[in-house]
Amino acid sequence: MHLHYIRIMKTLSELKDELELSPVQTMLLANTGSMTVLLEALFGPVSVQTESQKILDADSETARVLEISEGETVNRRIVRLVAGERVLVHATSVAPLSRLNPEFKEDIMKRDIPIGRIMEAHRIESRREILGYDWQTAKARFAEIFSKPAGSIVLKRNYNIIHNKQPLINILEVFPYEMAK
Amino acid sequence: MHLHYIRIMKTLSELKDELELSPVQTMLLANTGSMTVLLEALFGPVSVQTESQKILDADSETARVLEISEGETVNRRIVRLVAGERVLVHATSVAPLSRLNPEFKEDIMKRDIPIGRIMEAHRIESRREILGYDWQTAKARFAEIFSKPAGSIVLKRNYNIIHNKQPLINILEVFPYEMAK
Repeated sequence: MHLHYIRIMKTLSELKDELELSPVQTMLLANTGSMTVLLEALFGPVSVQTESQKILDADSETARVLEISEGETVNRRIVRLVAGERVLVHATSVAPLSRLNPEFKEDIMKRDIPIGRIMEAHRIESRREILGYDWQTAKARFAEIFSKPAGSIVLKRNYNIIHNKQPLINILEVFPYEMAK
Repeated sequence: MHLHYIRIMKTLSELKDELELSPVQTMLLANTGSMTVLLEALFGPVSVQTESQKILDADSETARVLEISEGETVNRRIVRLVAGERVLVHATSVAPLSRLNPEFKEDIMKRDIPIGRIMEAHRIESRREILGYDWQTAKARFAEIFSKPAGSIVLKRNYNIIHNKQPLINILEVFPYEMAK
């Protein structure tokens, strides 16, 4: 089973060659801090709507990216980051259960809290390693999620949050090009 | 001796009440990741020009912010972050010598490297805690540094980089309002 879409390996400058990016779009993509903090600075209070949350076995691709063994259990959470009625970002996070401490696990599995805010609450020290970027024309489902016409552009980025020298979470973010044009 | 100007304790929303801030200015101020990464995304390659670098004894205010004892030795580095000919940011960093490992100390004391890039090179896990914001009309020296008319506005923020649950570095950044209007 394919847990995650991680084959997005363009660099930011390759993306810039293919698409015209505004300063705000560029900053959202390049950011190595909390995405929630930047979204709240731009759009006001951000909340999480959880679309699904499941315990799954890592496929080979997920295992590679998270530096775990194939078949190890991971928590996959799919959420929407929302400001008011507006869906800003669609985010899929995958985390090896063995690396989550009990409080973090509780927050990520049972509560609608953005990951940046969970990390802040637990004062977790980390660094973000960006794995790649991509864009595509939105399929019907994404167009509907973002209330955009089908075929409009979405931007994507994938990164690992590293903690204790190991990937703690892999995150795939998708957001509409128009959000920050 | 007063090492540092840390009495800037406005919140971002207080700053927004006093000044009209663009989305890009707001993001630069709110950012909890590497400042260098965002500046490079906006302006291209960023280099450091070191204005001064000294070992000093912490005064009471510096000791309070860094959670050390008064009189402990700190490294104070004052730099300009520059893209091409343009000075983007004036930054003062103060770090307790006892908390810098030998490689970090070497990079910060002897080389012109932005702190974000030093942290990345040494894969240092951290979190950034923003202490406050402020703005002022630039005095003659700052106006000259940024090649702006005297009296033009500069934005300021102060934050700690926390590593191993202790402040590793306190950074005061000053940049011209016009940089990202």
